[in-house]
Amino acid sequence: MSTHPNTRTQNLVNWASALQYTDLPAPVIARTKDFFADTLACAVAGREHIAVQSMLHYAKQMGPTTGKCELIGFPDVKTSPAFAALVNGGAAHVVEQDDLHNRSMMHPATIIYPTALAVSQDVGASGQEFITACVVGYEFACRAGEYLGKAHYEKFHTTATTGILGAAATTAHLLKLRPSQFLSAIGTAGTQAAGLWQFLLDATHSKQVHTAQACAGGVFSAYTAASGLLGTGDILEGERGMGATLGNLVTTPEAIDRDLGRKWSILESSFKWHASCRHTHPSADALIALMADEKVHYADIESVTAYTYKAALDVLGLSGEGKTVHQSKFSMGFVLAVAAKRGSAGLTDFTEEALADTELRELQGRVSMVLDEEIDAAFPEKWLGRVEVRTKDGRVLSRTVHVVKGDPGWTLTREEIESKALALAEYGHVKDMNAFKDAIQRIWRLEEQDKIEKFSFA
Amino acid sequence: MSTHPNTRTQNLVNWASALQYTDLPAPVIARTKDFFADTLACAVAGREHIAVQSMLHYAKQMGPTTGKCELIGFPDVKTSPAFAALVNGGAAHVVEQDDLHNRSMMHPATIIYPTALAVSQDVGASGQEFITACVVGYEFACRAGEYLGKAHYEKFHTTATTGILGAAATTAHLLKLRPSQFLSAIGTAGTQAAGLWQFLLDATHSKQVHTAQACAGGVFSAYTAASGLLGTGDILEGERGMGATLGNLVTTPEAIDRDLGRKWSILESSFKWHASCRHTHPSADALIALMADEKVHYADIESVTAYTYKAALDVLGLSGEGKTVHQSKFSMGFVLAVAAKRGSAGLTDFTEEALADTELRELQGRVSMVLDEEIDAAFPEKWLGRVEVRTKDGRVLSRTVHVVKGDPGWTLTREEIESKALALAEYGHVKDMNAFKDAIQRIWRLEEQDKIEKFSFA
Repeated sequence: MSTHPNTRTQNLVNWASALQYTDLPAPVIARTKDFFADTLACAVAGREHIAVQSMLHYAKQMGPTTGKCELIGFPDVKTSPAFAALVNGGAAHVVEQDDLHNRSMMHPATIIYPTALAVSQDVGASGQEFITACVVGYEFACRAGEYLGKAHYEKFHTTATTGILGAAATTAHLLKLRPSQFLSAIGTAGTQAAGLWQFLLDATHSKQVHTAQACAGGVFSAYTAASGLLGTGDILEGERGMGATLGNLVTTPEAIDRDLGRKWSILESSFKWHASCRHTHPSADALIALMADEKVHYADIESVTAYTYKAALDVLGLSGEGKTVHQSKFSMGFVLAVAAKRGSAGLTDFTEEALADTELRELQGRVSMVLDEEIDAAFPEKWLGRVEVRTKDGRVLSRTVHVVKGDPGWTLTREEIESKALALAEYGHVKDMNAFKDAIQRIWRLEEQDKIEKFSFA
Repeated sequence: MSTHPNTRTQNLVNWASALQYTDLPAPVIARTKDFFADTLACAVAGREHIAVQSMLHYAKQMGPTTGKCELIGFPDVKTSPAFAALVNGGAAHVVEQDDLHNRSMMHPATIIYPTALAVSQDVGASGQEFITACVVGYEFACRAGEYLGKAHYEKFHTTATTGILGAAATTAHLLKLRPSQFLSAIGTAGTQAAGLWQFLLDATHSKQVHTAQACAGGVFSAYTAASGLLGTGDILEGERGMGATLGNLVTTPEAIDRDLGRKWSILESSFKWHASCRHTHPSADALIALMADEKVHYADIESVTAYTYKAALDVLGLSGEGKTVHQSKFSMGFVLAVAAKRGSAGLTDFTEEALADTELRELQGRVSMVLDEEIDAAFPEKWLGRVEVRTKDGRVLSRTVHVVKGDPGWTLTREEIESKALALAEYGHVKDMNAFKDAIQRIWRLEEQDKIEKFSFA
């Protein structure tokens, strides 16, 4: 139904709808499984959060409670693909440990895997179909994020706004939609793109609502496209589409369809090692390395200056002092204080006790952020960070970080992924750790599954 | 959870959550019932459209199919409040006969009534509770639309973006949320606000998706707020809220909470008499009146110039020649040709036969739109129109319209509402017209119902 049959979005759709498992290079398949394990663990780590509990309650209220699709960490409830995607998509984004794709400034995994799992269980997809659909979802979510870029990210939570395209694409692939239907699904998804940053100001739960609804909206878009609902044909580049309306026309059109089948978005995504907002990671890594190398102790620090890019200032600047555990992960001062005091900024470093720690709060007040033009020019291609530490004995020390742990250039081993996953599962109070470990092991052999199994555990 | 406890949004929430049926003036109650009857008829008129059929199919696929909530015109299916609101909210917006609130540039009824009906049936609300919740929903949807104004409407389909606030407010009132929960519902709704105009360019089905998802998203927002999910406290005026992000800061803040309890949005809304985009109505009325008064016949017309406001040019300019019945209602040329030839622009005037009528297509090509600065300055307070007709014998005739039929200043009588409703029901191929008529009669006595009944019919 596109009025522009040769658009980049059409190209991407044509490529995606024809993509098969056998087209995927081995590293793409391996990484797809890696991020699935990581996401499963993120979801279970988030399951006790009130936002997730609330959405779970909603799913039960709406029904059904006996569908084909599982809710991760809630083995007693089954539901529809829409609500499974909704709840799992919210849960996986709670603890801020899900992956990040640099250039698009979005978190694809928390959208793509919950959607793929829900729809696969609904239609009885195989492990290979699941993997292929996830790869497709990454391409739409990340390419659209790159297309919309910084001007969009300043106003919108890109994880949600382009995530919904990824969810629609993943679903469309699993439903084996024809290219015209696939394009409709993308159009319907894009016109629903939403997600504002206002929640950062008062530490409310919209971040999880955004990912949850992006998943559910993507499912809706592809299922309705399959039964004839027409979506607009050029939702990205059209005169009144996402680029013109949500991106202020400052876009990178070639990102939509360059190097299809040669450049894989999923290989460009990063694991999160620290449990804080990804914008704090370069500075945290720089500070930890500086303190170790220069033998600076927590008590020695007079002040810290974090040189960073504008998007970090924009997002982190909204979170105030960090009143809640979640909001504290968006305070550069608090994250650097935690990293300095504990040598890490992991899941168990951000607690109610930490919020009440006057020592942390004191150093937090002596951390400042400064815009660095060189670092800003490199963003979002590179997420760099530099910290400058003034010690109480008058030294001024500096450290720059180019690659943080978890980035494609310094990725996690399977052992590290497993150990991160186990820590997440413990954080989520998983009772049956053997069942959880077994689920992770089954993910490593996902391509052998004729039908996507249940991964849930108590 | 607001960081700004004395915001206008908080004021509106405080007022709305305390509003009771006994606070409502009699004309407000009467008009609420009028628009309900009008909306019920719009929904049944739209039920056969592929977009509605597709969403109905989706609701069945997701399930349940045996819930407490009815789907208008589909008596065999019952579902959850989320999916009842979704399907009915899409259906009521298909034939472009639902109401319009001028200053907000949005269509409240297609959002508010489907949501109120679904949630009332879920919670067992009374007729009086239903009416009060609808009045509340109108205030949020229309006031937010006025607040965001023209700059927002240029980019976004306001019916969807502020409609979701209305749906959330209607639901919140029916769920009897406390003010803090009510405010959370509004925050969660606003961060999901979406709806682009791109679909106008290729005559696709997003307009119905927008209203459907606004209803469902509003239901989600209030139900989850009831179980503890926190929405941001100042989603309208906050630093990263709707005004700043979706409205380009060109807003009318006082619209949010002025004259609460003295000015009623539902009394300001207009019935649609013509079945085309509301932006064409002033010109259509002017042309019909001019032709009657000046005894101009269809064959006499050389050309027509429609002087209008910028928003009309923006929206109508996207629809090209009108390839589909729905799109043809957004072509000023086609609508004026229809009005000139048939003396009306009603539901049965827009057909596949009309699309193929070369006489209509020929006059369509001789209609032009021109921006009129005076008319534009009055918009959206007043939706004025002036047409200038050149006749083949060289006369130049002009007519201005200040109030169109259906406006609050020239509203429909109950008899006209009923006759419009019957025409809509016939258009929707209602089999049991007595059941339909009975449903309308029961609406006139809605406040007597202890529990909202079923209104569905085959």
